[in-house]
Amino acid sequence: MPLDVLQNKFLHLRNNQSFELFVVAVIIFSALVIGAKTYDIPPLALTIIAWLDTAITIFFVAELVVRFMGEENKTHFFKSGWNIFDSFIVIISLIPIEDSEMALLGRLVRIFRVLRMISVVPELRVLLNSLLKALPQLGYVILLMFIIFYIYAAFGAIIFSKINPTLWGDISISMLTLFRVMTFEDWTDVMYETMAVYSISWIYFLSFIFLTTFAFLNMVIGIVVGVMEQENRLLQQELNPEPSLSELQQELKEIKALLLAQQHSKKVLEAVDSN
Amino acid sequence: MPLDVLQNKFLHLRNNQSFELFVVAVIIFSALVIGAKTYDIPPLALTIIAWLDTAITIFFVAELVVRFMGEENKTHFFKSGWNIFDSFIVIISLIPIEDSEMALLGRLVRIFRVLRMISVVPELRVLLNSLLKALPQLGYVILLMFIIFYIYAAFGAIIFSKINPTLWGDISISMLTLFRVMTFEDWTDVMYETMAVYSISWIYFLSFIFLTTFAFLNMVIGIVVGVMEQENRLLQQELNPEPSLSELQQELKEIKALLLAQQHSKKVLEAVDSN
Amino acid sequence: MPLDVLQNKFLHLRNNQSFELFVVAVIIFSALVIGAKTYDIPPLALTIIAWLDTAITIFFVAELVVRFMGEENKTHFFKSGWNIFDSFIVIISLIPIEDSEMALLGRLVRIFRVLRMISVVPELRVLLNSLLKALPQLGYVILLMFIIFYIYAAFGAIIFSKINPTLWGDISISMLTLFRVMTFEDWTDVMYETMAVYSISWIYFLSFIFLTTFAFLNMVIGIVVGVMEQENRLLQQELNPEPSLSELQQELKEIKALLLAQQHSKKVLEAVDSN
Amino acid sequence: MPLDVLQNKFLHLRNNQSFELFVVAVIIFSALVIGAKTYDIPPLALTIIAWLDTAITIFFVAELVVRFMGEENKTHFFKSGWNIFDSFIVIISLIPIEDSEMALLGRLVRIFRVLRMISVVPELRVLLNSLLKALPQLGYVILLMFIIFYIYAAFGAIIFSKINPTLWGDISISMLTLFRVMTFEDWTDVMYETMAVYSISWIYFLSFIFLTTFAFLNMVIGIVVGVMEQENRLLQQELNPEPSLSELQQELKEIKALLLAQQHSKKVLEAVDSN
Repeated sequence: MPLDVLQNKFLHLRNNQSFELFVVAVIIFSALVIGAKTYDIPPLALTIIAWLDTAITIFFVAELVVRFMGEENKTHFFKSGWNIFDSFIVIISLIPIEDSEMALLGRLVRIFRVLRMISVVPELRVLLNSLLKALPQLGYVILLMFIIFYIYAAFGAIIFSKINPTLWGDISISMLTLFRVMTFEDWTDVMYETMAVYSISWIYFLSFIFLTTFAFLNMVIGIVVGVMEQENRLLQQELNPEPSLSELQQELKEIKALLLAQQHSKKVLEAVDSN
Repeated sequence: MPLDVLQNKFLHLRNNQSFELFVVAVIIFSALVIGAKTYDIPPLALTIIAWLDTAITIFFVAELVVRFMGEENKTHFFKSGWNIFDSFIVIISLIPIEDSEMALLGRLVRIFRVLRMISVVPELRVLLNSLLKALPQLGYVILLMFIIFYIYAAFGAIIFSKINPTLWGDISISMLTLFRVMTFEDWTDVMYETMAVYSISWIYFLSFIFLTTFAFLNMVIGIVVGVMEQENRLLQQELNPEPSLSELQQELKEIKALLLAQQHSKKVLEAVDSN
Repeated sequence: MPLDVLQNKFLHLRNNQSFELFVVAVIIFSALVIGAKTYDIPPLALTIIAWLDTAITIFFVAELVVRFMGEENKTHFFKSGWNIFDSFIVIISLIPIEDSEMALLGRLVRIFRVLRMISVVPELRVLLNSLLKALPQLGYVILLMFIIFYIYAAFGAIIFSKINPTLWGDISISMLTLFRVMTFEDWTDVMYETMAVYSISWIYFLSFIFLTTFAFLNMVIGIVVGVMEQENRLLQQELNPEPSLSELQQELKEIKALLLAQQHSKKVLEAVDSN
Repeated sequence: MPLDVLQNKFLHLRNNQSFELFVVAVIIFSALVIGAKTYDIPPLALTIIAWLDTAITIFFVAELVVRFMGEENKTHFFKSGWNIFDSFIVIISLIPIEDSEMALLGRLVRIFRVLRMISVVPELRVLLNSLLKALPQLGYVILLMFIIFYIYAAFGAIIFSKINPTLWGDISISMLTLFRVMTFEDWTDVMYETMAVYSISWIYFLSFIFLTTFAFLNMVIGIVVGVMEQENRLLQQELNPEPSLSELQQELKEIKALLLAQQHSKKVLEAVDSN
């Protein structure tokens, strides 16, 4: 019982908008202060932020422990991806970072503490979920892009490698160069260089840009629109569960059957009457 | 009563398309003339524009005063965001700007006079409203982007700071550099520099570009489509209030109940008859 | 009568896919050949293309004349925008271009002959129509962008004009510089220059990029989606005119009224019977 | 009968997710290894990948042969575009590539082996199909873009050719320069150069950027959204075939007719009774 009460209190605190805002602010300041040594921040402020940061970590640990205790089946707890994520974040937050040593690993671990924000703000989880949902479809788009890139890169490596080996020496180097062309970063320099030797090579670059831009735009937007529409529809259906047209049709058929039966029985009745 | 008449007249004048166009033209010309000293404009034109500009300011003041007088409950007037905005614009327009002095503040205040256009063109308010509606969701997207940027910037500051301290000296400087990479502005220069030391660092840049581009596109478009669809739906519902399918189902159920009751009463009748 | 037959024949020829393709090909080749003096094209081919081009012009003139004759009310003819456009194109095509003189005007007029394609391909008209439909809404977006650009440009002209007068000397020059920043074209060079003096000026550039990118994306996409959805809906309604739910509800109400009337009359009947 | 069994087994193997993943991995590694001579890969790994690659080719040949044998009408087999594509890929895979010779043709043929992925992953075919569906509409967009590009390029070639013949010497060169401007690649360099002579030429560049960006965005997104919506709707209709509102209306009319007939017969009955 007291565990339930505790869990409820934590849930209450979590859903509190100002608490959420406060935690997010502390995490951001903490992240920025750790990162930048060049800011001129009074030592007092640094100490306060360090204390607040520790307080948040304690809150996280306590909350996670209570949530874990509240779970009846302990093995179920680690089946939720977000529970694993929260545990991972808590463990990272608990690794002691001794400033005197300041090993590379310690600094790298520290970076991931900013992920605590995802544990605090539920909307970020929604965003990440929708991104994860788009991933499988994106996999196929990346596969298709790889095919386009590979074919163009192989052509480029065969034909242009003598012109500029730094850009076209190898299929993998050519793919990087093509990615650069796709982002329009100084792509005309690359093109003019090859056009000096093969004046027709603008076809290579323009067709590549058309293909990738069109394919990319086409598919990314398609995926996005698809995922968003799906979610909007699901949301709307949950909020406002309208009967389907098939259900209405079913009812209409029942009514018609009733009327026909009525008419039939009446005819029988009339026949009996008239006899 | 005369106040009502006056208010109606102002409303009439406001809704007049040609008046709107005229005011917008004057504001734009006034803004451009103030800004650019290099144009060769005849002094007469400048005087005329200055007079027209003053006339518009007087119109604004008069209209706002009439609207304020027309409001029964004076405290309600300042609860509308647009009323506050209009008052702010009028006050800014009334601040005297003496050309002889031309203090920095005076010139800065003048700039905001261009905002009078938002007071005149109702469609601009609709646009701004739809932007404001998208803001809360955008806040979470920016938070997620901050997390991605922070993690990459921290990595960059740790690993690349010795290669080029101007670009990677600090987490905040690294974040600016990453923003530059995200806009594809000479990003290959940044990458080639780090690849000279760590040849594998292209993974860092490409993964960052993929993540941010995908996340950004995904979410911004998602928000836009969502907001627009919602507004379209609202508009359509207002214009053409169709009954919901649930209402139709309700009617069908009532009809069926009537028929069943009828059938039942008939059976009773028949039973009575046959007796 | 013979005019009708002629008009029908022209319509038939126009709707012929291969004729359309042929005309488009001739126009494109004609346009490219006129433009480029550097191609090594055999004189015979040039002559053939010139002849075909003339033939198309004659076809255009003939078709327009027949269409004009076919119109009963001659003043109605010039009320259709496309009729005016077609006439304009025909007049331009008829202006004689003497190669010996080759005045600038003649060459400029020639350029617009490529617009004949819009007269030939009906799908291009559909595209242009949908673009024109989006224009009025776009006007407001451009107005809003002007306000954002103006405020930032005025700030820039006041604060940065001493750093680099070539980029910030004037409000109009500043607006051009800001447009450059918006297209991400070497925008970091512009920013680093100002950051050398005011290290905080990155806020100016980043906020500007955020505002314009977001506003631009938001609104352009919104308009596009809106227009396209509207057209899709219109198309679908034309093809498949479904009854509205209100019509169905009306019918249901009539059925219920019938049933209630029936029940009432039966009760009256029963009352009579039992008496 | 044994052919049917064989075909089923192949279909089973194909639909196996892990088999698909395995084949895709082998194709990618094979493609990358062939392309890059600079990787330090142990010879054993190279041999294994070469063997696996050959095994996949054999699988492809066997599967295609079985599918071809299974088709009752052999001429129907080559009416499906994907069957032709698969046959083409198999033939390319069977062309022997002798490393000792390594002719240019052999290396080019090899490149296209990466297309085997499209034969293996059905989702890639779906993506390509949706791209192909958007192509016809895209054709008209490209035609419109050509008209815009041509008119601007012709103007540019006439007016700017003396300023910089490398960029504006010719209509076709001008079109390439304008494409560069459209991708925002160092477009300000091009503009500043012409503005030094004609200070008003920024109108030329800005109007071009506005036109192309707007037209491009407008139409590409429009096409994408259109195609995707259409597919979503088709998919939904297949999964959940709801009755149309017209069908419901039909049923309602039948019910009303029944009721009216009933009422009429009752009135007749009553008339008879009362007589």
